[in-house]
Amino acid sequence: MASSEPRGLSYRDAGVDREAAGRAKDRIIELVQDTLGPEVLSRPGSFGGIYRVPGDVASPALVASADGVGTKLKVAIMAGRHDTVGRDLVNHCVDDILVEGARPLFFLDYIGMGRLAEGTVEALVSGMATACRENGAALLGGETAEMPDFYADGDYDLAGFIVGIVEAERRPGAHRVQAGDVLVGLASNGFHTNGYSLLRRLLFDKLGLGLDDEFPGVGLPVGEVLLTVHRSYLRPVMPLLRAGRIKALAHITGGGIPENLARVLPEGVEAHVQRSTWEMPLEFEAVRELGGISDEEMYRTFNMGVGMILVVAAEDEVDITAQLRAAGEDAWGLGVLEPGDGGVLLI
Amino acid sequence: MASSEPRGLSYRDAGVDREAAGRAKDRIIELVQDTLGPEVLSRPGSFGGIYRVPGDVASPALVASADGVGTKLKVAIMAGRHDTVGRDLVNHCVDDILVEGARPLFFLDYIGMGRLAEGTVEALVSGMATACRENGAALLGGETAEMPDFYADGDYDLAGFIVGIVEAERRPGAHRVQAGDVLVGLASNGFHTNGYSLLRRLLFDKLGLGLDDEFPGVGLPVGEVLLTVHRSYLRPVMPLLRAGRIKALAHITGGGIPENLARVLPEGVEAHVQRSTWEMPLEFEAVRELGGISDEEMYRTFNMGVGMILVVAAEDEVDITAQLRAAGEDAWGLGVLEPGDGGVLLI
Repeated sequence: MASSEPRGLSYRDAGVDREAAGRAKDRIIELVQDTLGPEVLSRPGSFGGIYRVPGDVASPALVASADGVGTKLKVAIMAGRHDTVGRDLVNHCVDDILVEGARPLFFLDYIGMGRLAEGTVEALVSGMATACRENGAALLGGETAEMPDFYADGDYDLAGFIVGIVEAERRPGAHRVQAGDVLVGLASNGFHTNGYSLLRRLLFDKLGLGLDDEFPGVGLPVGEVLLTVHRSYLRPVMPLLRAGRIKALAHITGGGIPENLARVLPEGVEAHVQRSTWEMPLEFEAVRELGGISDEEMYRTFNMGVGMILVVAAEDEVDITAQLRAAGEDAWGLGVLEPGDGGVLLI
Repeated sequence: MASSEPRGLSYRDAGVDREAAGRAKDRIIELVQDTLGPEVLSRPGSFGGIYRVPGDVASPALVASADGVGTKLKVAIMAGRHDTVGRDLVNHCVDDILVEGARPLFFLDYIGMGRLAEGTVEALVSGMATACRENGAALLGGETAEMPDFYADGDYDLAGFIVGIVEAERRPGAHRVQAGDVLVGLASNGFHTNGYSLLRRLLFDKLGLGLDDEFPGVGLPVGEVLLTVHRSYLRPVMPLLRAGRIKALAHITGGGIPENLARVLPEGVEAHVQRSTWEMPLEFEAVRELGGISDEEMYRTFNMGVGMILVVAAEDEVDITAQLRAAGEDAWGLGVLEPGDGGVLLI
């Protein structure tokens, strides 16, 4: 070929720094090591993570879910704080499979960024490893991809993937639900991971607030309120699931109570959710007022203070809410299921 | 609150179109339905995908991997063709767990984009569903996230998660490898999914080529060469794995033959890869020449024509290569393992 052709192009010139990638990988391996129990047969860094199927489930089914943190990431990037969104992601995934009755086995992540930012990756993985430990899940693998030209400097995207296990014949779900059952609400601890595009638009663009300014009416900085970690409901809920006392569960994420509760209603059953049974938390009230947002839009965008809804037999309600409260939960009777095809009615 | 505050903010104003999301979801459900066998207990759209653990494995272990397509996505975006990268992603994941001996059970995806592009999502999912069917995997779930302010118009990121199953006690790997074993190479069908940042820099930026221009020396358009689908080695390799005749496998991805083959070498064993045993395919030769790229850099960035390497007992080499050729593979003796600590030597 002609010597006038470009010469000496290397992968580093093209925006990929393999040595930095190697260093980050070493630190990630230290962080995840802590989450790996004897059921993990692979070492970090192998082609695939290997996890022995637990032998204590008679008719085992795997429950898997993929998820992201949404534009809550943008708040983390603004704040330069990345461990909390790592924990958000794991807890969100844990809650998503918990509603199918599953306890988590393992979790994997995908981080896409323009150029490897070692500190950011380390903080993300540190958050994910912490939450994995808290939820008894192995951080079994992951991929950190350098994607030059895809992400602005400092930006990244983050996806999580979880696998849990459930006794197939004992799964909760719509098939166990009937009119006459009641709803038990479990409080959220803030916005969790939903509605952040709207929140950012309102707080930063329209109101011109910064992360250190007070979240109106809440008495805490905007950054702190927005980065509160999406909680995991595994610990309070799993004992009730094991005891077979929960008929179905809804994780209140995008789409809010109306869309998520609808997913566990069988035909001919509608939900009457009594809004008077709980007080809209201050941060939701402030967003509603300041944004001039309709109630309908609020309830479809935000969890409104309810992170998880359990469907239980009417005769179990008192005992179950008592048990949950004894476990430190804010739990209450949220409404009832009635014959009808009206879906989810907010009354 | 004061009436001078902004009013009427809705989720759609904030860049999220929930109705378009609903339509895309319906079409995705049709596409994935085809990949779901009787072992799948969930319906598309539930909180978590549910998959019954197969009963035909005595001591089952799950093998999981997370991956992306890298900046090959940028080529797909330039070309406006998205099904092929969907297939790339699934096949890449299948190959990653195949080297641990696993057959795939299910796959989940994550798509991040600025504003939902229905046609793009449909093409991506269509490609993933096709490849899932080809590999006997269920497309069990996924997340499509609208991330306003993260992605440029038309851009997206794509991650895949796969779970397979293997008989724990019969796994291939470094523990079964010893000096005296031999290497069998399986041909790649192009760049697969590695080295695309360098390829784009060279072909588009330095040489000023377009997708429809000829790939120098190859006789095919640049777009066609770059979007050739990363192949799956499941079909030819699984029968040999089941027969227990493969000691270890290396999927030749980022890091090339040196880094990936090193992952299956036990202490005290080094690999002698004979470069004269195969011809560098035309597209790699052209990149080497036009980019003025050192051999070392080429072999660490690209697969160089070798997509998968099997480690087998010396006495099995002839029979195994014959079986692979009979199955339509381009397979050959690529080198040998010797006592030593030199790692992977390209001779």
